[in-house]
Amino acid sequence: MQPRFLSRLPDREADEINEKDNPVILAGFGRFGHIVGRVLNLKGVRTTVLDLDADQVALVRKLGLKVFYGEASRLELLRAAGADTAKLLVVAVGEKETSLLIIETAQKHFPNLKILTRAFGREHAYRLLEQGAENIFRETLGSSLDLSVAALRALGFRAYEAQRAARFFRDYDEQSVRALAQYAKNEKELIFQAREQIQTLDQLMETERTRVHQPDSGWEPPVAS
Amino acid sequence: MQPRFLSRLPDREADEINEKDNPVILAGFGRFGHIVGRVLNLKGVRTTVLDLDADQVALVRKLGLKVFYGEASRLELLRAAGADTAKLLVVAVGEKETSLLIIETAQKHFPNLKILTRAFGREHAYRLLEQGAENIFRETLGSSLDLSVAALRALGFRAYEAQRAARFFRDYDEQSVRALAQYAKNEKELIFQAREQIQTLDQLMETERTRVHQPDSGWEPPVAS
Repeated sequence: MQPRFLSRLPDREADEINEKDNPVILAGFGRFGHIVGRVLNLKGVRTTVLDLDADQVALVRKLGLKVFYGEASRLELLRAAGADTAKLLVVAVGEKETSLLIIETAQKHFPNLKILTRAFGREHAYRLLEQGAENIFRETLGSSLDLSVAALRALGFRAYEAQRAARFFRDYDEQSVRALAQYAKNEKELIFQAREQIQTLDQLMETERTRVHQPDSGWEPPVAS
Repeated sequence: MQPRFLSRLPDREADEINEKDNPVILAGFGRFGHIVGRVLNLKGVRTTVLDLDADQVALVRKLGLKVFYGEASRLELLRAAGADTAKLLVVAVGEKETSLLIIETAQKHFPNLKILTRAFGREHAYRLLEQGAENIFRETLGSSLDLSVAALRALGFRAYEAQRAARFFRDYDEQSVRALAQYAKNEKELIFQAREQIQTLDQLMETERTRVHQPDSGWEPPVAS
């Protein structure tokens, strides 16, 4: 995240938007959204960016990037941003309730818009799933898996094996979030089911270990690298 | 993140630790650290987990996983957790100042311990770099790139091309954080340098586009898939 050192803009009226036919609307341009915007920009994809943080908008403009100030959950602003004709809405705001609101508005008024959403964590993912959002990216999952791969590498596991474990875990964990979403309102059942899931994961991995590698009897330093 | 529905434990004394010879110490077992712990567990790597959130510790124990309650920046606790003999310290706490403190203690007293660190964002990364930490994982970078790849795919880019763009961006962005760290205390210079970096990235990508693909004249729907 960039430092928030710029003073608040005096005028908090939503900006007028004149980039109506861009294929992507990106709501939220903080440490998550700005990465998405820049990657899309690199591939020549024109993006209409909306952000509610006036400091962030001012800073990003100083950096020479295009971003508009406004509340992305407001129907008029989404329409002004071209939601009728855009292909994709990326919801990258950092506040859970705001992201749920934006998605609610978009689903209701622009049913053809494909939505990709940043989620805070599991709990937020459960609520997004309940609301019918499908393409959910828990915001720390990717980097925690990146660190996991680096940890396994540092312990001597080969790159292929470390990446395979992370991929395996990710697939399983994404399935698990979807499977547990239905218990999200029942705490006891959620804990019971989560424990079951973790045991199943252990068993799956054990099966995989036995099938592919030699059986594991406690941790031993693997192949040095 | 799991719901914080369990009542606080009455006794907040640090737990006694009896898993001294584990190769990994994992500080912080929230939505980031618990993923790392579970991936390591899947590969049979024994991990000593420390967490300061009593609710989280209680919940994780309910799930059948091992975790100890205590302040990971305290020298005695790190020593009790086996920092003298462990190979790896994963700092996955969610608070910036705490992570800087843990690393300071570990660097001073256990110089042979390899450290992998979760960072909040760029600003935190600058401070970690200044402190000599090297293996830094900004917590939302991985997932924001995952979403970027999915966005490019949804727009019709091929999987290979989308992943290549994300990889290219990541490499460049990691270099950029390291290059900009030296300007972190000078706001004007930081903005100037950041703008330069973004332009350089555009130029690099333009060069890559010209070399590998046909020249790009504005966004066109790429290969349908």
